[in-house]
Amino acid sequence: MTVRDAVVAVDPAIAGRDMYDLIAELYPICRSITGEGFRSTLDTLARHLDLAVHEVPSGTRVFDWTVPREWNITDAYVETSAGERVIDFRASNLHVVSYSVPVDARMSLYQLRPHLHTLPEHPEWIPYRTSYYDDNWGFCLSQRQLDRLAEDEYHVVIDSSLTDGYLTYGEYLVPGASAEEVLVSCHACHPSLCNDNLSGVALATWLAKALAGSEPRYSYRFLFIPGTIGSITWLALNEATLPRVKAGLVLACVGDPGGLTYKRSRRGDTEIDRAMAHVLMTSGADHEINDFSPYGYDERQFCSPGFDLPVGCLNRTPYARYPEYHTSADDLDLIRPDSLADSFKTCLAAFRVLEENATYLNQNPKCEPQLGRRGLYGAIGGRSDTQQFQLAMLWVLNLSDGAHSLLDIAERSVLEFGLVTEATDALVRAGLLVRQ
Amino acid sequence: MTVRDAVVAVDPAIAGRDMYDLIAELYPICRSITGEGFRSTLDTLARHLDLAVHEVPSGTRVFDWTVPREWNITDAYVETSAGERVIDFRASNLHVVSYSVPVDARMSLYQLRPHLHTLPEHPEWIPYRTSYYDDNWGFCLSQRQLDRLAEDEYHVVIDSSLTDGYLTYGEYLVPGASAEEVLVSCHACHPSLCNDNLSGVALATWLAKALAGSEPRYSYRFLFIPGTIGSITWLALNEATLPRVKAGLVLACVGDPGGLTYKRSRRGDTEIDRAMAHVLMTSGADHEINDFSPYGYDERQFCSPGFDLPVGCLNRTPYARYPEYHTSADDLDLIRPDSLADSFKTCLAAFRVLEENATYLNQNPKCEPQLGRRGLYGAIGGRSDTQQFQLAMLWVLNLSDGAHSLLDIAERSVLEFGLVTEATDALVRAGLLVRQ
Amino acid sequence: MTVRDAVVAVDPAIAGRDMYDLIAELYPICRSITGEGFRSTLDTLARHLDLAVHEVPSGTRVFDWTVPREWNITDAYVETSAGERVIDFRASNLHVVSYSVPVDARMSLYQLRPHLHTLPEHPEWIPYRTSYYDDNWGFCLSQRQLDRLAEDEYHVVIDSSLTDGYLTYGEYLVPGASAEEVLVSCHACHPSLCNDNLSGVALATWLAKALAGSEPRYSYRFLFIPGTIGSITWLALNEATLPRVKAGLVLACVGDPGGLTYKRSRRGDTEIDRAMAHVLMTSGADHEINDFSPYGYDERQFCSPGFDLPVGCLNRTPYARYPEYHTSADDLDLIRPDSLADSFKTCLAAFRVLEENATYLNQNPKCEPQLGRRGLYGAIGGRSDTQQFQLAMLWVLNLSDGAHSLLDIAERSVLEFGLVTEATDALVRAGLLVRQ
Repeated sequence: MTVRDAVVAVDPAIAGRDMYDLIAELYPICRSITGEGFRSTLDTLARHLDLAVHEVPSGTRVFDWTVPREWNITDAYVETSAGERVIDFRASNLHVVSYSVPVDARMSLYQLRPHLHTLPEHPEWIPYRTSYYDDNWGFCLSQRQLDRLAEDEYHVVIDSSLTDGYLTYGEYLVPGASAEEVLVSCHACHPSLCNDNLSGVALATWLAKALAGSEPRYSYRFLFIPGTIGSITWLALNEATLPRVKAGLVLACVGDPGGLTYKRSRRGDTEIDRAMAHVLMTSGADHEINDFSPYGYDERQFCSPGFDLPVGCLNRTPYARYPEYHTSADDLDLIRPDSLADSFKTCLAAFRVLEENATYLNQNPKCEPQLGRRGLYGAIGGRSDTQQFQLAMLWVLNLSDGAHSLLDIAERSVLEFGLVTEATDALVRAGLLVRQ
Repeated sequence: MTVRDAVVAVDPAIAGRDMYDLIAELYPICRSITGEGFRSTLDTLARHLDLAVHEVPSGTRVFDWTVPREWNITDAYVETSAGERVIDFRASNLHVVSYSVPVDARMSLYQLRPHLHTLPEHPEWIPYRTSYYDDNWGFCLSQRQLDRLAEDEYHVVIDSSLTDGYLTYGEYLVPGASAEEVLVSCHACHPSLCNDNLSGVALATWLAKALAGSEPRYSYRFLFIPGTIGSITWLALNEATLPRVKAGLVLACVGDPGGLTYKRSRRGDTEIDRAMAHVLMTSGADHEINDFSPYGYDERQFCSPGFDLPVGCLNRTPYARYPEYHTSADDLDLIRPDSLADSFKTCLAAFRVLEENATYLNQNPKCEPQLGRRGLYGAIGGRSDTQQFQLAMLWVLNLSDGAHSLLDIAERSVLEFGLVTEATDALVRAGLLVRQ
Repeated sequence: MTVRDAVVAVDPAIAGRDMYDLIAELYPICRSITGEGFRSTLDTLARHLDLAVHEVPSGTRVFDWTVPREWNITDAYVETSAGERVIDFRASNLHVVSYSVPVDARMSLYQLRPHLHTLPEHPEWIPYRTSYYDDNWGFCLSQRQLDRLAEDEYHVVIDSSLTDGYLTYGEYLVPGASAEEVLVSCHACHPSLCNDNLSGVALATWLAKALAGSEPRYSYRFLFIPGTIGSITWLALNEATLPRVKAGLVLACVGDPGGLTYKRSRRGDTEIDRAMAHVLMTSGADHEINDFSPYGYDERQFCSPGFDLPVGCLNRTPYARYPEYHTSADDLDLIRPDSLADSFKTCLAAFRVLEENATYLNQNPKCEPQLGRRGLYGAIGGRSDTQQFQLAMLWVLNLSDGAHSLLDIAERSVLEFGLVTEATDALVRAGLLVRQ
C-alpha cells in the first residue's frame, strides 16, 4: 500500500474523534519532563503503536546540558488549621509547580504567599508553572482561590521526590524504501494541558498509525519527547541519524479552532517548507505562513546552527496567541475533533507531496501531443473537474523538461498537488511522460 | 527608413479604421482550419501584402499530429416539411459545426435534437462549435430559434466535403539587417468572428505593411495560420528557423474596447516580455500582465518545452473573459477602430524597443559632464518635456557603464523608452556616449 | 572612547538646539559657490571643528568642468528716480541672482522686467536663483513687490565682482583604526536658506563634533563644499582616496518637521544603505526609503558610474516636495531643533551599525546552550526589555554560523541593532560567542 492509498483509506473525521478520545484519556495524568507520568503516557500510546521506549540516566551529558534528576509526585496540598485542603493536587495537577522539591511545613499565609502563583487577569484559571533547573517549590491556584485564603497557620505538603533516575522518551519508526527520514516530533511533558501538548501527541500518534500499514518512499520517525531537554537528548544520542533527515515537523497546538499556522525551517525553502506552503495555499482555508524564529518549540533545537535540519513547526493558533495557553483553560473544551481532523489531513497531504514529488520527462516535447487521439479527453469525461484536469495535464507536459519537479509544477500552476499527480499518472499511462 | 521612421510615418487612427474595414470585408467568409475559406482570406490579404501561400498535403505528419483532410462546404440547412429553412447556413456560417461530415436525411426533432447547439444563457446568440478530429455533424442556433422548432419531419442537409487536400497558410517576411527574427503569428481559421480571429489577422497585416517599407534591424516574420494545427505544422516544417527567433507575439482578440493584456512567454523575462511590459507600464493606460500558462492560443505550441521560444501573447480582453467569445455576438459591433489602433501602436512601440535597444558607454564616467556647456539644456528649450528629457539624459549617463542596456535604463528610470533613446541620441551627438 | 560611548555621551535634544543656534548665526551670510561668504561660513564652523580649508584656483580643470571665477558682492539695489531702494540686497541676499555680473545702469521698468524673478503662486516669497555659468544678472523679489513697481527710470546697481580667485571648501577628518572611510558631505553654497543648505551644514558639524573625541573603527571624513562643482572638485583632487570610501552620506534638508527620507546609493544594497534602512525601519517613526536616481544632491557625482561610491542621501522632506524650497520661506521658521536632533540621532545610529557590525561564531552550535545555568536570564532580570533581550540572544546564537553578520541578524530578526549588539556582548562575556 502506498502512502496515497493509506491516506485515502483513513477518514479524517473519525480520526479527529479518536484523537479527541485519546486526549481525554491522557488528560488526567500528571506529566513532567521525567517521571512516572511520562512513562504512563507512553504506555497509553503503546496500545496504538509499537513504541520503542528509551530511558536515559540522570546525569548524562547531552551537549551543553545534563539530563536532570527524575521527578515524581504522589500528593500535595495546603491545609488550614481546621484541616481543610484549600489547595489540592488531587483536584488539578496544575496546582503544583512542576519539579517542586518536597515540602512538609507549617507557615503563615505571609510566609506561603511568595510560593503562590495566580493569573489576576483570568481570575478563574490556574496557571501552569515549572522550575526544572532551580531547586524551588510552589503552588498555582486561581485568583479566586487566593482571594478566599484567610490568615492562618497552613500545613503545606508536597510529597514529591527528585532522585537519580531516567529521562524517558518514545520513538516509532515506519521504515520506507529509502533510508532518508521524515521526522515528526511532539512534546509530551505537560500535565493536564490539551492544546499545548496533548493535541500534538494525539496527532503524531494518528499519523504514525495511518502510515504504519503503508510502504512509504521515505522512513517516518515519530518522537514523543519532553520539550527542550528531550530534543537535545535525542539529538545528542542520534547524531549519526541526522544526515538522513530530509524533512521534519514539530507538532503542537493543533487542536484549537483557529486556522493553521506553519513556521518555516531555518533554511526557509526546504521541501517540507514548500510542501506545507503549497498544501495550505491550495486548501482554500485561512492560514498563516511565518518565517523561522529561534523561539517556539523543539524546532529551536533541530534548527540550531550546528544541525540546521529542514524541520518546520505546525500549529493552529501559536502558543503566544491564545489566552488559555499554559493555564487550566487549555482543557478539553478548547480543542475540537474537527480541528484535529483538519490538522491530520493537512499533514498527510504534505507527506503525500514528499512521497510523490519527482521529476518527469515529456516524451513529446515539441508542441503539445494530441491528447484527444489518446482518449485523454474522453477518459475523463465523468470528472466534475475535467477542465482543471486538462489544465493540469497541459502544465505537466509543458514543464516536464527535466528541470521542474511536480512540486515546482504545482507551485507555478497553483493547482492542487493531488490533481497534478493524477494528471501525471494519466500521461505516464499514455506513454507521454517518463519518470526521470 | 528605420523602424522608428516607419513608426512615425503611420497614423494609428487611420490604420485603425483601415483594419476595421479589412475585418468587415473578411467577416462573411466561412473559414475553417483548411479549405477555400482560408484560401480566400489569404487572397484578400494578398492585396495588402506580397504573401507566400503554403499548401501542406493532408496526411503530412507534423510531430504528434497529422494534417487533416480538407473541409469545404457549399450549403447547409434544416427544412420543415413545409419547405421552410428554419436553420440556414446562408444566414450565418456559424450555423454549421465546423468540419461537419455531409448529411442528407429526414428526421424528427427528437432525432435532430442531439445535433443542435445553443446558448441558453444568451438566447439570441449562436454559438461557434467545431469537431475537427471526430467524424460528427451539427448545427448551432440561438435558443430563441430552438424554442420555435415544432415537432416535424425535418430535412437535414449539410453539403460539405472532407477530402484529401491541403492545409493552407500565409507567410510574409520583412527582411532585416540581422537574420534574427521577430515572429508575429495569428490564427485565421474562424468563420464570422471578429475579435477572436479577424482582429489579430488585421493587426498582423497592418504591422507587416508598416514595417514593409523599412530597413529593420531584425527580420520580421508574419504567420497567418489555422490555430493549433497551423502552428504545429509551421514549427514542424521550419525547425531550422527556430534558433533565429529572438522574440515573438501571438495576436488575438485585439479589437475589443478592453485594456491590453500581455501574457508572458514561458521563460517570462525575455526581451519581448520586458519590452511589452515596459511599453504597457509607461502607456498610462489600464493593462494587465500575466504569467505564462499552457492554455490559450498558439503560444502553447511556440512555448512547448521542446522549443521554449521567447513568444508572448497580446490580447485586449482575453478569450475566456468576454461573454461574446465564440458566439455570433463576436461581430463587427464588438470591435472598434480605436482599439485596433491602440493595439497597433503598442506593438510598434514594442518593436521599437527591440530595434533600438543597445548598450552604450558613457565617455565621461567620472562625475556628470557639464551639459550646459554643450548646449544640451538650451538645445531642448522648446520641448514641453524638458525636465523629463534632462532626467533621461542623466539616467542614460549614469547607467551607461557597459552593464545596462537602454531597456534596463528605461525600466529602472520608469521613463518611456522613446524618451530614453532620444536622450541617447543627443548624448551620442555630443560625443558623450558611444554605442558599445 | 568607542563610537558607542560617544553616542551615549551626547544629548540629541541639546545638540538639536545648538545646531539651530549655529544655523541662526550662519543664516545672514551671503554664500555662493565661491567667495567671501563661503569663507566666512567656514570661519564660523572652525570655531567648532579644526577644519582644513582648501583653496582651489579658478581655471583648474576638474574632469569635464573648470573651477569658475570667484564671485563677490558688496551691494545691489534698484532705486526709483526718487531715490527709494525698491529692491535692496541689504534686506535679503536672495534679492540678487547669484553670480550676477556687475551692473550700473538706468532703465525703464520695461527694460528691467526680464531681469526680475518672482513666484506668482507664493506672492510674499522671494525666489532663489543662480546663473553660475552664464554671464547674466538679475533680481529676485516677491510678486507683491513687483506689483507695486510703477513705470519709472530705475537706477539698477549690482556691485559684484567676478575675478580669478579660488573655490574654497572645508574638510575635517576623524581618524579611525582603519583607513577605510565614511564620507559625510554637505553643500554650503546657498545664501539665506535654512533647510536646504544650513541644516546639513549644522548636522555635519555636530556629527563631526560627536565623533571627534572617539576612537572609531573607521575614519570619518566631513566635507563642507559648494554643490556640484565642489564635489566634482573634491573627487578630482582626491581620486586616490576613493577606494577607501566604504560608506557615505550626503546631508541636506534635515531640519524640517517631515519624516526622514533615505535615498539609496546607486548600488542600492551597500552597508550604509542597509544600515540606514534598518535604523529607520526599527525607529518606529514615519519614514521613506527611495531608490537611487541621478538627480538630487552631490550623490549624483559620488554615484557617477566612474566612481559608483556607496554613498546615499539623507533628507527629511526632499527638496522637490516642500513649497518653501529655494525661496525666502526656507527660513528659521521652517526648521526645528527637534527635527535636527532626530536627524542627528539617526545618523549616529547608522554609524553605530557600521562601527559594530561584525560576524561572530557560536561556540556551542549544536542545540541551544543552557543560558539559565550561566545566569544569562538572571543577569538581565532588571531590564524592562528582558524578553526582547533573550530573543536577541537566541537570534544571535542561531545565526552566528559564520555566514551572518550582526546586521544580517538585526535585519532578519527585526530587532534594533543596539539590542543585538548588547546580546552579542553578553554572549561573548559568557564565552558562547567569538568574533570571527
